[in-house]
Parts: sequence; C-alpha cells; structure tokens
Amino acid sequence: MTLKGNALVGQSGGPTAVINASLAGVVEQAKLHPEIGEIYGAIHGVQGILDEELCDLRAETDETIALLSTTPAAALGSCRKKLTGADYACLLAVFRAHDIRFFFYIGGNDSADTSHKVGKLAHESGWEMRVIGVPKTVDNDLGYTDHCPGYGSVARFNALAVQGSGLDTAAMSTVDTVKIFETMGRNAGWITAATALAREQSGDPPHLIYLPERVFAPERFLADVKRVVDRGNGCVIAVCEGLRDAEGQPIVTFKHAVGTDSFGHKQLGGVGEFLVELIATELGIKARADKSGTIQRSFGAAQSVVDATEAKLAGGAAVRRACEGITDQMITLVRTSNDPYRCETGTAPLADVANAERPVPAEFINAAGNDVTPAFLEYARPLIGGPLPPVARLKLARVEKKLE
Amino acid sequence: MTLKGNALVGQSGGPTAVINASLAGVVEQAKLHPEIGEIYGAIHGVQGILDEELCDLRAETDETIALLSTTPAAALGSCRKKLTGADYACLLAVFRAHDIRFFFYIGGNDSADTSHKVGKLAHESGWEMRVIGVPKTVDNDLGYTDHCPGYGSVARFNALAVQGSGLDTAAMSTVDTVKIFETMGRNAGWITAATALAREQSGDPPHLIYLPERVFAPERFLADVKRVVDRGNGCVIAVCEGLRDAEGQPIVTFKHAVGTDSFGHKQLGGVGEFLVELIATELGIKARADKSGTIQRSFGAAQSVVDATEAKLAGGAAVRRACEGITDQMITLVRTSNDPYRCETGTAPLADVANAERPVPAEFINAAGNDVTPAFLEYARPLIGGPLPPVARLKLARVEKKLE
Repeated sequence: MTLKGNALVGQSGGPTAVINASLAGVVEQAKLHPEIGEIYGAIHGVQGILDEELCDLRAETDETIALLSTTPAAALGSCRKKLTGADYACLLAVFRAHDIRFFFYIGGNDSADTSHKVGKLAHESGWEMRVIGVPKTVDNDLGYTDHCPGYGSVARFNALAVQGSGLDTAAMSTVDTVKIFETMGRNAGWITAATALAREQSGDPPHLIYLPERVFAPERFLADVKRVVDRGNGCVIAVCEGLRDAEGQPIVTFKHAVGTDSFGHKQLGGVGEFLVELIATELGIKARADKSGTIQRSFGAAQSVVDATEAKLAGGAAVRRACEGITDQMITLVRTSNDPYRCETGTAPLADVANAERPVPAEFINAAGNDVTPAFLEYARPLIGGPLPPVARLKLARVEKKLE
Repeated sequence: MTLKGNALVGQSGGPTAVINASLAGVVEQAKLHPEIGEIYGAIHGVQGILDEELCDLRAETDETIALLSTTPAAALGSCRKKLTGADYACLLAVFRAHDIRFFFYIGGNDSADTSHKVGKLAHESGWEMRVIGVPKTVDNDLGYTDHCPGYGSVARFNALAVQGSGLDTAAMSTVDTVKIFETMGRNAGWITAATALAREQSGDPPHLIYLPERVFAPERFLADVKRVVDRGNGCVIAVCEGLRDAEGQPIVTFKHAVGTDSFGHKQLGGVGEFLVELIATELGIKARADKSGTIQRSFGAAQSVVDATEAKLAGGAAVRRACEGITDQMITLVRTSNDPYRCETGTAPLADVANAERPVPAEFINAAGNDVTPAFLEYARPLIGGPLPPVARLKLARVEKKLE
C-alpha cells in the first residue's frame, strides 16, 4: 500500500549558495506526488521541529519557489544542533502530530547522523516514515558521493577571487609582495584546493597552496615563500583555516570561544593574519591577508550553474526515492563521465555517511605538499560551471632604454 | 602649432576593478590622434618611469586592449611612491629621452600631486608636455568630481556580499547572531556606506553602519547591537577599517608596520575581529567577522557596468583634452541628471585635487551616526550599474501547533 501523508523538509548546518536550490527541488518534486499532502518546512532545521515551528510551503507561489534556486543561504533558516535522546522523542511526537510521513533533511554529516537516528526511532516506534538526506556542504567532505552540492559554488567564488586577487597582487607587488588568501575548511582542504582553478597559464596564482591534509611546517613554508618572492611579480598563497601542526593542533585557534557550537567545533580563524606576521617577522616581507569568511559561501553572483542544477536534482531525487519506498538513505552524486561532464544521483545509507569525513586524497596533493595535482584539477574543473571570465594579458614589450 | 610626440600612461595606487578600463580608454583614444606617435605604458607607475621601464602599448592587439575593460587590477603594474625632488628631475629626463609630450596618470590624490609636480617642473624646464590625471580610487574620496571610477564596482561587490552575507546571517542567527562586515576605507566611509545598497526592503541588512566620519563610541555601538539582536533574526553590521575613537586614533592599528607605505599610511586592519571580541566580552554574544580585503576591489564578476563605462570615458577624455591643449588638470565626472542617470566629464586643476580628501558629507549620515540617509542612497544607487539580483522571500506561514 502506498504511504500517504505530509512531507517535512529542513535545512541544516552552514548555508551554501545552492542549499535553497535543493529546497526548490524538494518542493517542486513533492507537488508532483499525490501521496504527499502538505509540504511543510522546518524553521531553523531540527530546532524548528523541536519547537514545532513549521511553515506551509504550499502557501508559497511557484515564482518564489523557482527563485529559491538562485538565492543563497538557507531560506528556511538553519541550525547547528546536536540532539540528545530526549530530543529524538520530541521530534517523533511532532512528526506524529503533523502526520509527517516523508522527512527530507538537507545537510552535511551531522545532519545525516540526525536523520538516521530519528528515522531509526520512528521505525522502532512503529511510525512509518521515509527519511532521505540531501547532501549539502561547501566543505565537500561527505563520503559516498563524488562531490557535494555547495562545493562547486564556493569553489567558483574562490577561483574568481584568487584570479582577481592575483592580478591585484601582481599589480602591487612592489608594495604588498605577498597575499595570503584564507579559505574555509575546518578539516578538509577541498575549498582551498579549488583556488587552483584560478590558473589559466603556468605561473598564474595561486603560487602556493596549503591544505590541512598535510602538516604545516613553518620552515618549509617560509622557504617556499622566499623562493616564489625571489622570482618577482608577487606571491599568492592559498591557505586553509584548518591548517594543523605536527601534533595535529590548529596553528591558530580563535581567541573567544563564546558559543562553540554544540558539536564541539571550535571557531577557527586568523590563519591568514598569523602567516602575515610570520612572514613579516621571519622574512621581513610585507604581506596582506584576505579572508572572505562567510562571503564565499553566500555570494549569489558566483553561483556555479552546475552546482545549482545538481543541488536541485538532489532535492528532487530525494522525494522520488522516498515515494518509491526508499528510506534511511542520503542522495549521492555519481559522476558517469568527465568529458563531457555528466552526473547522476545515487544513494548511500545515512548511517555510513553520518559523521564520516572525506579528506582530500593523496593523489590530489603534490609531493611537496604545497600544491594540488592535475588529477585534482580534472576532478574539480567541471564543478564550477564553466570557465572563468578571460582577462587581458599585456605583452608589456619593453621600450629600449635611452639613459644610463 | 600642434604639439606632437609620444604619449605615456601609468597606473598608480591601489588597483580597482576598472582602472584597466581607463587604460583602455587612453590607448584607444590615443590611437585616434595623429599627433600622438608612440603610446607607452609605465611599468609600476612612476617607479617604472624612474627605472626607465616602459612598454609599447601599440604592440598590443586591439582585442587585448578591449579586454582590459573587464579585467580587474592594474595591468601595467601599480605603485605607491612619494617622489623626492631628485625623482622629479629623473622623470623629466626620461620624458625628454623618449619624447613624451602627453602624460596620463591614472590614480588618486597622491597621483594628482605627483602629476602636478612633474608637469610644473617640465613647464619650468621648457619641456612642453600636457599632463592630465585620470581619477581612480575605490575610496571615492577625491574632490571636484561627483564620484570616482572604481567606486561603483567596489560598491557593487560590497552590496552583493552584504546581500548574501545578510541572508547567511539570518539563516544562522540561532548560532552566529552577529556578523561584522568590514570594508576598506582608510579615512572616508564611502565604501562602507555603499553596503546599504544591499537593502531591498525595510529591515534588510545591513542593520547598522559605522563610518570613520563619526567618532566610534563603544558604549553606543554595544547598545545599538543589543537593540538589533533583541529583535531577532540576526544583526549585520557594516564597519569601516578606518573607524576612529574620540581622539581621532584608529580603534585598531595593524601590529606589524613592515612596509608602511612611503606616504606614511599605516596598514589598518582587524577592526572586524576587534569588534567580534568586544561583542563577545561585553554582551556575551557570538559574532563573526567577514573582511574581504583586496577581494572587494578586484572581483571582476562584480564590476559595475556604469563604473567601467565611466572609467573608460575618463581615460578617453584625458587624451582628447590633452590634444585640445589642456594640461595640469584631472578629468572629473559631472552628474547632469539622476533619473535617468547621466554623467559627463569635466576637468579640475591637479593642484586642487592633490592631497585633498572628501569625506562622506553630513547629509549622507543619519543623526545617530549608525546608518546612511536616503540622500546617500539616491546618490550611490546609479553607480553600481543596475539592481542586485532578486532573492526569494518565503512567507514562512506558520503551521498551527498541535502540541503543548
């Protein structure tokens, strides 16, 4: 017998440029399935469910839902909340009260854990409900999926920013010689790695790339910087906020721990400024740090078309799979061809995805640990949704000198 | 008798998204004037002239010159160099050696000073040469011009970034309640003020705006923040890197003074992180700081079409005026109509422009000193080259609660 009832969708964790595209995919697909009655949204993710703060997504116009696909951040509101045992029971009470039979949770590995646990409790309690996770994270660190919706857009932003920042640094290389470009990435270097997509020709910035998958060694770093600086024309260095030392400790920890989130994540920051100081102190060279912070994940004008398309696809696939009877799975992206780039959806068990993190693999990092490999570029390039805009490259043919 | 000879163009100071458009304007216009022989570029501004490092801009293809209009940063290389008396004599020697009769210098007030002085020395030495400045600064703080090429694009970037960052903050308001958005602006708040263009409706971010034209008072600031936070849905605060205390001192000065530039400007920074700490310590509220640094002036995808058009127009006008016999002037932008927006070029004496700074006027700042006025929005809106992309606004119609 076909399961009938209401659907609930929520968004969780750090927003991305395309998490709303996934929401649009869920809502538009849900409207096509007669077994789905009401389509509810959870305000601020599981926090909204706990507070019984739900909204009616059928009350939104088709135009508004369509516009979600190009609207950054999480339109329903998001949260970072680690649930306790009592919370799960509370969620289930809300599901029962509102006849929720289809639950779609758009988020990362913490959200997969939450989804899996609430689905398990529902099952054990005899409440028939399909639970499907929709992947989302700028960090691109979920397992079982080729890549994560949200990554292509943050990658595009950072590639665009390093392209411009690189031109800026070259222009100002007689004044500000070194540019430290700090990206997000608590435990994985995917975002930092993507800055390499700014390169069009050999020698283009970024000149050095440091990922948290390799121990950060100050002496090697300084030697690298000195070598690039000596070549002239400036030095652009992409670094990850999560860089770690030989003991596995962050090389910089944010001073104030007000509101360390409930998963125990520390708010990192300041790696860029720390390295500016290191370079000034040890090499006597002036550096500047750029750190776009949350701008990189919420800059609509840098949205990758491929990313937005796939995010919406994943949202729609979640509803289709649920209506087919699938539960306790996360939608995955499966790359079926790289040239031309093609991608389909698949599924993976939520329990497998939960709390697992996928670092940048060794074959994507060069031997010296200061750059990515061509294999990484091949992997990442299709995800940013087309080439960067071309830039003028003057020949700067020198005029013969006439003075001594 | 018509002055005949070679032309030299240089770029100076911090790059912008459109300083290359001005270069394109100079080169394309110069090609139309038969009295101009060679068209040379100065590598890294006056530093390149001192070193006799000139390049041949007629050797570049028309396609490359055209592409300059959408290429951020300074393609010839820029510099920050305060000249001494001996330097001026050296410049003149290079001008004579290369038969430079037309000198175009694209830059801000320091560059106007340089241009005026070298023109004066040439005149006194009997070397006939036309010197025209082309305005350029993201800071928008030059006098005698309605606005400065470079400002519209940095304004557009920051408006786009605050639009996205605002949505991001609202989405995460249960976790990261306050977002400090720090912009450039050493002495003037024009860039920070432009973040107000992110607003589409009343209540949209930024919720508070602090400019260096008003004394920064921590108690008032904290009271403002608390009031906005208490309304719910997060608080986005735009602040200028150049905020000053009652004694006129920067509220934060960058630790390392390696390479304080030769005009004695200090490298400012860290206002955002400073305020994050202040809010944490005094209010116990978690804040995050976003500081895009040089990204804001070099992000090609945020270039304002109006800004690029005017930057090119100013470059072309400089050549036309010089060929008409004008010298020792800077091109200005003259707004002839606001609705529809229309702008022409004019001129102002370089000596008047030199070293003058135009702060945000009182009528553009609200009485409380924590926002801009409608008059500012009317002034700034046409400069960003069209509206920001629309974003979805969900009604979030609440579903009736069924549980106690």
